[in-house]
Amino acid sequence: MARVRPLSGFPEWTPEDRVVEAHVLSQLRHVFSLHGFAEIETRAVEPVERLSGDSEASKEIYTLGRLGASDDEDAKVGLHFDLTVPFARYVEEHQAGLAFPFRRYQIQKVWRGERPQEGRFREFYQADIDVVGRDVLPAHVEAEVAIVMVEALARLPIPATSMHINNRQLVEGFYRGVGISDVAGALRSVDKLDKLGANGVRAELNAKGVGESATDAILELARITSSDDAFAYAVDDLWHTSIQVGDAGAEDQLREGIAALAALVARVNAAVPGSAVADLRIARGLDYYTGAVYETFLDGHEDLGSICSGGRYDSLVAGGGFPGVGLSIGVSRLVSRMLAAGLARASRAVPSAVFVAVTSEETRAASDAIAMRLRARGIPCEVATSAAKFGKQIAAADRRGIPYVWFPGEVGDGEVKDIRSGQQDAADADAWRPPTEDLGPTVLHD
Amino acid sequence: MARVRPLSGFPEWTPEDRVVEAHVLSQLRHVFSLHGFAEIETRAVEPVERLSGDSEASKEIYTLGRLGASDDEDAKVGLHFDLTVPFARYVEEHQAGLAFPFRRYQIQKVWRGERPQEGRFREFYQADIDVVGRDVLPAHVEAEVAIVMVEALARLPIPATSMHINNRQLVEGFYRGVGISDVAGALRSVDKLDKLGANGVRAELNAKGVGESATDAILELARITSSDDAFAYAVDDLWHTSIQVGDAGAEDQLREGIAALAALVARVNAAVPGSAVADLRIARGLDYYTGAVYETFLDGHEDLGSICSGGRYDSLVAGGGFPGVGLSIGVSRLVSRMLAAGLARASRAVPSAVFVAVTSEETRAASDAIAMRLRARGIPCEVATSAAKFGKQIAAADRRGIPYVWFPGEVGDGEVKDIRSGQQDAADADAWRPPTEDLGPTVLHD
Repeated sequence: MARVRPLSGFPEWTPEDRVVEAHVLSQLRHVFSLHGFAEIETRAVEPVERLSGDSEASKEIYTLGRLGASDDEDAKVGLHFDLTVPFARYVEEHQAGLAFPFRRYQIQKVWRGERPQEGRFREFYQADIDVVGRDVLPAHVEAEVAIVMVEALARLPIPATSMHINNRQLVEGFYRGVGISDVAGALRSVDKLDKLGANGVRAELNAKGVGESATDAILELARITSSDDAFAYAVDDLWHTSIQVGDAGAEDQLREGIAALAALVARVNAAVPGSAVADLRIARGLDYYTGAVYETFLDGHEDLGSICSGGRYDSLVAGGGFPGVGLSIGVSRLVSRMLAAGLARASRAVPSAVFVAVTSEETRAASDAIAMRLRARGIPCEVATSAAKFGKQIAAADRRGIPYVWFPGEVGDGEVKDIRSGQQDAADADAWRPPTEDLGPTVLHD
Repeated sequence: MARVRPLSGFPEWTPEDRVVEAHVLSQLRHVFSLHGFAEIETRAVEPVERLSGDSEASKEIYTLGRLGASDDEDAKVGLHFDLTVPFARYVEEHQAGLAFPFRRYQIQKVWRGERPQEGRFREFYQADIDVVGRDVLPAHVEAEVAIVMVEALARLPIPATSMHINNRQLVEGFYRGVGISDVAGALRSVDKLDKLGANGVRAELNAKGVGESATDAILELARITSSDDAFAYAVDDLWHTSIQVGDAGAEDQLREGIAALAALVARVNAAVPGSAVADLRIARGLDYYTGAVYETFLDGHEDLGSICSGGRYDSLVAGGGFPGVGLSIGVSRLVSRMLAAGLARASRAVPSAVFVAVTSEETRAASDAIAMRLRARGIPCEVATSAAKFGKQIAAADRRGIPYVWFPGEVGDGEVKDIRSGQQDAADADAWRPPTEDLGPTVLHD
């Protein structure tokens, strides 16, 4: 058997760090539920032809085979690399049984066969919400999903976040107006601004045949940002100074996009003041977005990239008819940073609030009975594995991070000691209760 | 794109049925935590050579490749088929950071490339608990893990369960005593009693060279069962009437096993009366068990096979030194039966307790504000997507299974209607609260 070693790109947490991850997941679930999102889970695998629709990602797809089985014995399937592809298939498959607009959340691991690097995992949790309509979905839902995510992120033990929002109609109208025909191609280049810088993007755009003045204009557009509707005036100014090709309809599309973005940012900030900004550099590489596009950054950790992204799309399902809007949190990447940067840590690794000591193996049943009475009132506890000297048992509790040790007594239920303060008192196993903050592991925010 | 269709062996639940599964998982987590078990998750993949140690299972292992990548580009890994193999690797890898005895629970999906059939899935949830010591682990822990699982199962909306327990020392001592040298091989045959019947097992044993009288004796042993220590007398009788080969030590081993099993069953039944029986047919196919072995059956659904199985082992880690005992619930198989047999169902598919109606798009903000105030007090709600006529909005709430519709008013916060009874009253969004049973979806037990 080979030596045991970690697999690069497949993170695993210690029990203590899992407490932090579980806390994050539970907060997200709580907020998603408060907003009426129902949970689904989809199978881990999809047919390969469904996964590889976007050819750029196909080298990242993990396919499944069976040890000792010939290749053609099974249908060709691969592990999902996001939760959108399986959700689309789920909606298509189960549409008859779903009530639309369908509000769902989904928290599962996804897999990508990328070259592992800092903050890039091959296996990681995503937490997605989407609202999908049947034929129609009003624009206000674009604000609603943003507010859900902003509220959810605000409950996590992390610095403030800022959601940056753009609008595809605005961008497309503008791009068309300055004479760009391959809007999607230009957007994919602008999406690389962080990676390549303005000069790198300019070179890519030139290589794609975008002229110098159009490039100037769209790079200038990407510099516009505001937390209110000031962006609208800046876009207006830029539009009037840019050389336009006279594409009929481009300006209408631009104006529609501006109005939609201004309304969206205003709605989100009305619900959670200071949470959203209009940011016209937000491109998102994916072609299928048609309205709002979102990226979210963690204050002081902008290098992490977006921790919550998504957008509005015309149809989840290839045939059309299922307009929706969704956002996805990259949970593992966020948790990894929280742990590495010391943003949060667990108060202890174990659920037990109480370690019930055992006086002798003959009286173990008395310790078990006390533990059972504590558990009946929701107090997590464990009973000492061995009837060692009390000093050793206290040391065992301390090593596990358990705050209280219960010593069964000959009279009554005995005494309980807070091993942090040394305070020890007689106690009744049907009445004693630790302070709420000691009941289970809590997550401390530095 | 191919037509959308289910993949055989990969179950997926509707939102309503997911409520039942999530309820089951949350009850298990709750009980495991009350008993001081810490949660871990392990990566989905392990090196293939670690997975294929048990050659009988190796055709069931799903291996991973990458689309468009050459075969030797990646280390050969496969999806885990249980949670024991990854847990063993986790303990070996992280031992320096763990406090022993390590009490962990783990709830994750596992994958097996089996031929799908009723109740056999290719992807399913397992829920495992184990206690692993460093060098030593007292026998009373064999009772403790059984009690945890019995308590956990008792909280689920299912009929009563019965845990059947045997002891490997007892079996090995007896088998050796009647002259069987390949104890593990004989056990694997006895493990097939349900599948092959007594005659089928007899034929297998004969083929393995086990003589007629030894076969008689061990088939007779497998018939012994009792809910108290009556089994001990039956074993004693059988031992004295069986033809023995005079293996020195076999009887000592038998006696030790009898005493251990009697104590274990008594302990479990003392904690949860009527939950455990000694059942000497319980074999478990796996070689590594050395003490207690467990299987658990659901009353009236014995055809489902064991829903919770496990045992005591000498070392989790190949090198030795990590004795442990663990039990595993096959959650998906259990939930699948609960749903198919109508044992449990969700009161509704969505978390929302309240559907806040919208009078007109101009006053949507007033509806949003009411929803926000309800959520601030933990009441899940959603706001109507469209400002349709109230009759249509009530129908939309009804279709989603939401019990209450809130009509914002011109005076105060408006009125709330229970759409089941038709009762409608003026209400204050900072004070009104639904009955607890209406707050979220509940799971109804038929």
